[in-house]
Amino acid sequence: MTRRVRVAGVQMAMGEDRAANLAHALAAVEEAARRGASLVVLPELFTGRYFPQYPARAEFLGWAEPIPGPTTEAMAAAARRLGITLVGSVYERAMPGLNYNTAVVLAPDGSLVGRTRKGHIPDGPGYTEKFYFAPGDSGYPVLDLAPGGVPLPTATPTCWDQWFPEVARIAALQGAQLIVYPTAIGSEPAYPDEDTHDAWRTVMRGHAIANGVCVMAVNRCGTEDAITFYGGTFLAGPMGEVLAELGPDEGILEAEIDLDAVDRARELSPFFRDRRIDTYGPLLARGGRP
Amino acid sequence: MTRRVRVAGVQMAMGEDRAANLAHALAAVEEAARRGASLVVLPELFTGRYFPQYPARAEFLGWAEPIPGPTTEAMAAAARRLGITLVGSVYERAMPGLNYNTAVVLAPDGSLVGRTRKGHIPDGPGYTEKFYFAPGDSGYPVLDLAPGGVPLPTATPTCWDQWFPEVARIAALQGAQLIVYPTAIGSEPAYPDEDTHDAWRTVMRGHAIANGVCVMAVNRCGTEDAITFYGGTFLAGPMGEVLAELGPDEGILEAEIDLDAVDRARELSPFFRDRRIDTYGPLLARGGRP
Repeated sequence: MTRRVRVAGVQMAMGEDRAANLAHALAAVEEAARRGASLVVLPELFTGRYFPQYPARAEFLGWAEPIPGPTTEAMAAAARRLGITLVGSVYERAMPGLNYNTAVVLAPDGSLVGRTRKGHIPDGPGYTEKFYFAPGDSGYPVLDLAPGGVPLPTATPTCWDQWFPEVARIAALQGAQLIVYPTAIGSEPAYPDEDTHDAWRTVMRGHAIANGVCVMAVNRCGTEDAITFYGGTFLAGPMGEVLAELGPDEGILEAEIDLDAVDRARELSPFFRDRRIDTYGPLLARGGRP
Repeated sequence: MTRRVRVAGVQMAMGEDRAANLAHALAAVEEAARRGASLVVLPELFTGRYFPQYPARAEFLGWAEPIPGPTTEAMAAAARRLGITLVGSVYERAMPGLNYNTAVVLAPDGSLVGRTRKGHIPDGPGYTEKFYFAPGDSGYPVLDLAPGGVPLPTATPTCWDQWFPEVARIAALQGAQLIVYPTAIGSEPAYPDEDTHDAWRTVMRGHAIANGVCVMAVNRCGTEDAITFYGGTFLAGPMGEVLAELGPDEGILEAEIDLDAVDRARELSPFFRDRRIDTYGPLLARGGRP
């Protein structure tokens, strides 16, 4: 039986018209499926501009929607029609006054099989998310996906989560062989000389290596007011090797996951056997010197 | 006040004669100090061949020595004479039947200021260490070093520890701004097609990024029986940038640590502020699916 999965990432720029963004995203998903992908991933909050670049604007709270809701319904219809597994990202209203930044997964039958609320919430110039999103309460669940009929345990944390080794480790400990991060990252408005692109790519390649997992990050691109999103959507294999990667423009990442490579990496480097769990207590503390 | 520290890493090949290896190492340390380094690092178990490539040979147990002992005394004399901080690695006999693989740090006054027993012990073809070394009991302490008079909180885990994000994270949480790994890594005798060099380098660059620390790995080189050690000694800055790096041959890595860059990286990316310690409990479990 094959243990390969064809995956795609839709890297796109978002305009002001949210209905147009959704239509644009779903057209790209259809194109990715037509090219043979059985798992397709969209960027973080793909239906709209990246509003958290504006600090504390109450009008954007109205963009939050329930799950299931309009965006997941549209995604479900596309997943069912195309027979694919579809990963997206929704500004989720859990109840009035409690919103999350949530990755959702739709199965080929259109059912909602995953909802992972972004755990780590950034707050810096251009990325002031703490006003808009509560820290997720879902942990880092591993979903038993089966794109193209191939069992593929997958975790779907979001963006800032990707900088935290704890997230990738917990996902891998729970069985993940693929970690997918819908993302919105680009320039730093307050630090024009800083370019985080290589660090962003490298820290996730590191997660792939340390855990023997495949890692996929799907970013937006284009310029929205003060931020230019750098794209760079990629898939890394379990030795950290970049299997496919996009540049700064719109496009569809096409790549193949080889689950036998996951097994081989873990035979070569049996990190999970050797973890010193008796010494890891300090990870649960905030840290800092007394 | 300057917040820069000149550091050096001695990349060397080891021969059969252990006294000659020690003399060779100390000559290189002197050369590094002469070139201006105030912190000098030696490779893992630098006084001898890498005997753990041979499974379960009792004769090598006799190579273990106490700390303080001959190797640390020789290191202490060199550190005092040259006025440097010196990091080395000793096969430590704690008591008969209990040996560790231990990184030691000698201060410029010759005092032994650090002893960190390797926490994670590998065991695979060519690297069968579990027979020779008990898993360390020292945790991942941060030492208040001051090479050249510049305060530099430093952790000194060893080799296989470098693949585990937990180690770098715990060190950083306890205040480390530099993590130094004495190392012995090279080819994989049972997997001749595998080359771990890029993964090795990348996973540590990832630790640098995720923790906003400098990372330095000092490897041996040359061929010893079934293993060719690949060298590649390097220093990475807190954005994962490789500041200096050696090739596969003997040499002295010369580089400079800029502690202001650590502050800048942590201002740009305040990961420690945003860690979700309430969600990290699974890190203390062995993992795996039920």
